[in-house]
Amino acid sequence: MAQLRVALAQADPTVGDLRGNSELVLRFAKEAAAEGAHLVVFPEMFLTGYPVEDLALRPSFVAASRTALADVASALGAEGLGDLPVVLGYLDGSLDDSPSVGRPAGSPQNAAAVLHRGAVLARYAKHHLPNYGVFDEYRYFVPGSSTCVVRMHGVDVALVICEDLWQDGGPVAATRDAGAGLLLVVNGSPYELQKDDVRLELCRRRAAEAGCTLAYLNMVGSQDELVFDGDSLVVAADGELLHRAPQFVEQLVVVDLDLPAADERRPVDAVVGSGPLAPYDRRPAVQAPRLDDDEEVYAALTLAVRDYVRKNGFASLVLALSGGIDSALVAAIACDAVGAENVHAVNMPSAYSSPHSRDDAAELARRTGCHYRTVVIAPMVDAYQEQLHLSGLAHENLQARVRGTALMAISNDEGHLVLATGNKSELSVGYSTIYGDAVGGYAPIKDVAKTRVWALARWRNAAAERRGEVPPIPQSSIDKPPSAELRPGQLDTDSLPDYALLDDILDDYVEQDRGAADLVAHGYDPDLVERVLRLTDTAEFKRRQYPPGPKISFKAFGRDRRLPITNHWRERAPR
Amino acid sequence: MAQLRVALAQADPTVGDLRGNSELVLRFAKEAAAEGAHLVVFPEMFLTGYPVEDLALRPSFVAASRTALADVASALGAEGLGDLPVVLGYLDGSLDDSPSVGRPAGSPQNAAAVLHRGAVLARYAKHHLPNYGVFDEYRYFVPGSSTCVVRMHGVDVALVICEDLWQDGGPVAATRDAGAGLLLVVNGSPYELQKDDVRLELCRRRAAEAGCTLAYLNMVGSQDELVFDGDSLVVAADGELLHRAPQFVEQLVVVDLDLPAADERRPVDAVVGSGPLAPYDRRPAVQAPRLDDDEEVYAALTLAVRDYVRKNGFASLVLALSGGIDSALVAAIACDAVGAENVHAVNMPSAYSSPHSRDDAAELARRTGCHYRTVVIAPMVDAYQEQLHLSGLAHENLQARVRGTALMAISNDEGHLVLATGNKSELSVGYSTIYGDAVGGYAPIKDVAKTRVWALARWRNAAAERRGEVPPIPQSSIDKPPSAELRPGQLDTDSLPDYALLDDILDDYVEQDRGAADLVAHGYDPDLVERVLRLTDTAEFKRRQYPPGPKISFKAFGRDRRLPITNHWRERAPR
Repeated sequence: MAQLRVALAQADPTVGDLRGNSELVLRFAKEAAAEGAHLVVFPEMFLTGYPVEDLALRPSFVAASRTALADVASALGAEGLGDLPVVLGYLDGSLDDSPSVGRPAGSPQNAAAVLHRGAVLARYAKHHLPNYGVFDEYRYFVPGSSTCVVRMHGVDVALVICEDLWQDGGPVAATRDAGAGLLLVVNGSPYELQKDDVRLELCRRRAAEAGCTLAYLNMVGSQDELVFDGDSLVVAADGELLHRAPQFVEQLVVVDLDLPAADERRPVDAVVGSGPLAPYDRRPAVQAPRLDDDEEVYAALTLAVRDYVRKNGFASLVLALSGGIDSALVAAIACDAVGAENVHAVNMPSAYSSPHSRDDAAELARRTGCHYRTVVIAPMVDAYQEQLHLSGLAHENLQARVRGTALMAISNDEGHLVLATGNKSELSVGYSTIYGDAVGGYAPIKDVAKTRVWALARWRNAAAERRGEVPPIPQSSIDKPPSAELRPGQLDTDSLPDYALLDDILDDYVEQDRGAADLVAHGYDPDLVERVLRLTDTAEFKRRQYPPGPKISFKAFGRDRRLPITNHWRERAPR
Repeated sequence: MAQLRVALAQADPTVGDLRGNSELVLRFAKEAAAEGAHLVVFPEMFLTGYPVEDLALRPSFVAASRTALADVASALGAEGLGDLPVVLGYLDGSLDDSPSVGRPAGSPQNAAAVLHRGAVLARYAKHHLPNYGVFDEYRYFVPGSSTCVVRMHGVDVALVICEDLWQDGGPVAATRDAGAGLLLVVNGSPYELQKDDVRLELCRRRAAEAGCTLAYLNMVGSQDELVFDGDSLVVAADGELLHRAPQFVEQLVVVDLDLPAADERRPVDAVVGSGPLAPYDRRPAVQAPRLDDDEEVYAALTLAVRDYVRKNGFASLVLALSGGIDSALVAAIACDAVGAENVHAVNMPSAYSSPHSRDDAAELARRTGCHYRTVVIAPMVDAYQEQLHLSGLAHENLQARVRGTALMAISNDEGHLVLATGNKSELSVGYSTIYGDAVGGYAPIKDVAKTRVWALARWRNAAAERRGEVPPIPQSSIDKPPSAELRPGQLDTDSLPDYALLDDILDDYVEQDRGAADLVAHGYDPDLVERVLRLTDTAEFKRRQYPPGPKISFKAFGRDRRLPITNHWRERAPR
């Protein structure tokens, strides 16, 4: 056996920020060296950030990524870190290949390089390009076909990228043939609920197939709609979980591994060091505590908001705080993400707002310490009404749009990013006013079903109580029946089924892709099924216009579920 | 030689409307039979409409498409049309295959069937799945691998679908091996400027490769951002253009072809009729007149608006008419699309609107005959200002948003679809107010550069003059310097370079994907290049929130060009 101390940089890059990401590489490499690591590894396409989308198709961007890679290699050398091998994901490409229909220009590749002594020692390009769910990699990359095994201090280390692990018969099988002692998998694997369990099982299966220890490094942080949860892990060939990093936290995870010494006669792509290292004292295993489901989702949303604000150059947030549960939860997340001193809540009562709503909004601001102000919408609504004389839905929407305009005005005037507060249940069925409650730069709970909104609020309050803190969300915001308060006595249940039932149907229809016949067979009322499906199928325009927000479910609307706007498909329920 | 009368149904389906599309099949098949056709052909995925996007991943939708196909076959038989073979594009799939990571559930296929005597005689599934530009077919379909040749009245007719024609070495080569006498290509090929020439040359080349006559049938109509231009054509093996259908017009194109008689000993997938038909009189060749570039774009935009309105269940349009050139052009398009009697123009002057703007708006309404009204925004702006005290950009945006809210209120109240009037140059650099001028259900000129906006306005006026009609657009709307009129004396050139220069840079940067260094080498000022690129790279959020609009260029924003919102990539220009 041979020892190897591997530093997994579970880190948070920014798309397009080649300079900033390079600095992160140097910082973590320095830290790894200080920790005595023999190898430091960065996630998939860390140098460019991930996903870069159509930037991959810009030859100037591919060239910049290649230059940045060479520059990082030099800088590592110049910093005295040249002897520490660095595995770094980046965007590669060949700028001189001839164009052909449908092949991305410049043949971009999702690649990783092994940097050593100021140069690129070895390269690997991802074989399997995912093109489902949130992924569009056939659009962006040409697949690699070579394997990459580097002998590091007497251990053969094989390298693959993300989807290569998920596909049967991929380069993992080649790892076994190569007799590697460690399979390194670098990932940009987006968070979704329960995916941590799936990943762990997958890693166990592939470690067995590869016949060696498998180190799975995932990115952490957020990029637009995607949240990367970290949760990096190491499993042995027999399936034993050796190390597991924290979820949603940037961290250099340093693990000591005992690995089979390489058969020196086998050919490899490159060699670092000469044979196994002298034995040294092992550090204890890394075993971060696991979050339960509500805690996990709350952590994902908070990280997403924090990263979106920071990476888009904002320092503060503004949101409409009505006293209802959705805006209360978003306010709590906002305060946890950027600090209450950077959160500006605006209460905008109308003629139909109940006094308790206003009290609840003020109470939340008092409890969290966020800024709080009131804008009365009646004068603006009246000014419109004098010319337009609206009634019914047009009048309800007007109130929501006056609020949206006021919020955007405050945002423009004071420089805060606006958060939209709609939840997934509402958005699924189009229960939202476009340009009204739908304004904003980011929508933290757009992928959170209403029933989970309540659960998260309860979890957050309970967490505060466990820490001896004041729960941020007033209990009456949690307990009261949901209402848009756009006409006298209005309740959500006037227009929608009870949320528990609605969320069940939506889960079956959206997440599971079940049809109307299936739903009726499952026991739902046929009329209700048709109504919910019709609402969902005709709300695509509203959903597309809604601000982006973090994906937490298997099928979030947006990148995950792309429907035509013009769509006459209506499922009939058998009766 | 053998004769064959082929009816190409250059028709306009609606996505998801299986019943309506089936009725179109029956209507055109009837017409084809009345015209004495021996074969009637429908475009790619005509039965479901195209593109269906994630509907392809719903097992219930795949099943419905298969059922609808069988029903159409029966209905054709029941209508006495069973002897007329019908080639019909549809969505196929296999619902019993086992799931695997990344393979679309139910293995959907982009397929075409030959219907005859009440049943499916033969099937073909598209081999090559485009996954670039506006296409995402790796996401939706599994590729076919079989060829399809049907002997029809003594002529071997081979069938392929769209991208199969574009890829070298695809099933076209197999057509030659099969000795087919006619290669039928069914398409859903979206319009873009100059693509008609590319298609014609491609058809000529593939006809030579296939060694036979090639009939290219394209869809017509619009689906969200895609416009299908028709422009179906037939070329001989020697490259001669035999027939060409009109652009942007729904039409059953009936062509008489002289084709080589089949070698009866060759195996085929199915047979219709027994040997060549008795000679009959040929009809004259179809040669529709060609549109010039401005006429073509104008026709594309008009068709797109008409289809979007109709297919989304609206009958009328509303737009803000400022007196400027953008809204003037959109008003003219709107009137041509749905009739002036269904167009509602709203002039919303502010303190900074010039009197000539208002005159020009009223004059356009007078000339076209559309409805016209005025909403004065000052009272609403003042009501906001009393509480918010905005200045600068926040105050400019407020005016635009008050207009947006008024427009949406009228839309909600009266049931018109709102058109947004922004052009591609503005949107490229983010010169637009989100939730202000950016409100609307459809944005007819969002892919039209400002310089082309002027060209289209001039073309439309000249076309009216040629027909002895009143030109719809007041000359002063065309001639005056562009201004948002959101502060005293404001001109677009205060914030942006001259549009001729801006459009040149944008064309190079966006359409050609050239980098900053290339642009400077091309002679542009480095500071200007950096400024325009920075504006363009940071405007993605605004572009994503803008309503959909018809694609006319090679790289429209949206489906064609998908950029991260959070994006720190900034190109530096060499100096």
